[in-house]
Amino acid sequence: MTNWFEEQLDIDKGRALRIRTRKLLEKVRSDFQEIRVYETDAFGRMLVHDGVIMLTEFDEAHYHEMIAHVALVTHPSPRDILVVGGGDGGTLREVLRHPLVQSAHLCEIDPMVVEVCRKHFPGLAFSFNDPRVSLHFDDGAEFVKRHSAAFDVIFVDSSDPIGPAEVLFEKEFYHSMRSALKPGGIVITQSESFMYHAELIEKIAAFCRTIFPLYRYYYALVPTYPSGLIGFSFCSLGPDPLNDINPERIAALGRMRYYSAEIHRSAFTLPARAEEIFKD
Amino acid sequence: MTNWFEEQLDIDKGRALRIRTRKLLEKVRSDFQEIRVYETDAFGRMLVHDGVIMLTEFDEAHYHEMIAHVALVTHPSPRDILVVGGGDGGTLREVLRHPLVQSAHLCEIDPMVVEVCRKHFPGLAFSFNDPRVSLHFDDGAEFVKRHSAAFDVIFVDSSDPIGPAEVLFEKEFYHSMRSALKPGGIVITQSESFMYHAELIEKIAAFCRTIFPLYRYYYALVPTYPSGLIGFSFCSLGPDPLNDINPERIAALGRMRYYSAEIHRSAFTLPARAEEIFKD
Repeated sequence: MTNWFEEQLDIDKGRALRIRTRKLLEKVRSDFQEIRVYETDAFGRMLVHDGVIMLTEFDEAHYHEMIAHVALVTHPSPRDILVVGGGDGGTLREVLRHPLVQSAHLCEIDPMVVEVCRKHFPGLAFSFNDPRVSLHFDDGAEFVKRHSAAFDVIFVDSSDPIGPAEVLFEKEFYHSMRSALKPGGIVITQSESFMYHAELIEKIAAFCRTIFPLYRYYYALVPTYPSGLIGFSFCSLGPDPLNDINPERIAALGRMRYYSAEIHRSAFTLPARAEEIFKD
Repeated sequence: MTNWFEEQLDIDKGRALRIRTRKLLEKVRSDFQEIRVYETDAFGRMLVHDGVIMLTEFDEAHYHEMIAHVALVTHPSPRDILVVGGGDGGTLREVLRHPLVQSAHLCEIDPMVVEVCRKHFPGLAFSFNDPRVSLHFDDGAEFVKRHSAAFDVIFVDSSDPIGPAEVLFEKEFYHSMRSALKPGGIVITQSESFMYHAELIEKIAAFCRTIFPLYRYYYALVPTYPSGLIGFSFCSLGPDPLNDINPERIAALGRMRYYSAEIHRSAFTLPARAEEIFKD
């Protein structure tokens, strides 16, 4: 008998990706969500929160390389890093490839995510063992509020704006992040797909422009996410990802699965209809 | 009661997009395939051949603009055009935006496709009424074989390499197309997704390089296709889409839904893992 997992995120909108599963490796309920891990035929292992795909082994590198490296080769001296969410360890893995990084704090609300990923995704969660890492099990919004001029780059590696991550898509949180940045700092946030979530992105871009001197939006191709891609907000107190790239640092990364100097640049080029979202 | 359509193309590989349908507007069996038209909630009207999504109103422009304009702003004088397949009229619609085009031949194997699309997709099929268009209901491979030095650009707007379109993915057909091109001509072919079909694309790229002096691969984002994107082979007897662009002709197109001068260029930039496909 074969089993199919069906992505729940956009069921109400009339679209859903189905993925054949070989085995359910884990199913636990934490204080925040139901967490599952499947073995699939097409995408390797797959992490699911409340019926929504978080990552698969097939394409997690696309997301994690793109959330991390664009800011880290742009900031002149990224030493102190905060990741909000990202309990799987994938974003941290990419952050730690940069030798300039001296401290990497990860603030994950749900300890069970880290526990499950240590067990089933060692290729991501090994990053927790790096001596530069400090793990905090806390509410990301509260954690950020308690810090001032502390981080060079903040990554918000969140799930979608329903459930525990909803507050991470609000203007107030972006204000807190600005205060938590050191001068010249950068914030990168998971910002959904311009194909399906134009209204949400328009709202985020509008308030970001009132908070940060520079706002840009870029994307990565991730076939197992709705519409096959996901976007990121690039909010900066100074450095510009299109003009302040550090080519030596890109070269030092070596061969990546997704990221390259060319992709860095083209990821900011959107189809004509998506450019409309960002018109004033 | 709600009904869901399930894309059949990659069921055996363990992945499938499901789309909620409001109404089945048409279901006919031609000599070649079963053709359906649905009204959907998320993507407007949707054309389906043998259980495989051909196009939806939501994203058909992404595909049709990208198959057509990249070659037509690169070729110095695209006067005589052939479209193989494309019985919906969408590629023709984009081709005819170029005033340099004097004749546009469309060779579609299945007259029923044209009939169904005239009825349900007037926004695409109106292009058949243009006086520059000649419609041929014929086998594309045979039609091409009968022509020599006849076309400036050939577009192969085919379905996937199973069923009637299989021969359009073979080396012999590309040889015939080269002979059917005028000097300096260009061939563009639908060439699947680099995310899922690396082997097929590697094969096509390899034989194209033995037939054409210049081969490049580019892509368009199409959320309702597997992996959310589709690629095209750019095979040329001379003009280079990265160096011989005609900016005035791009400007003359006006505002497109997907295509722009910036997208033209970035569409050739592939993620690192996809670049591997094209290494010698």
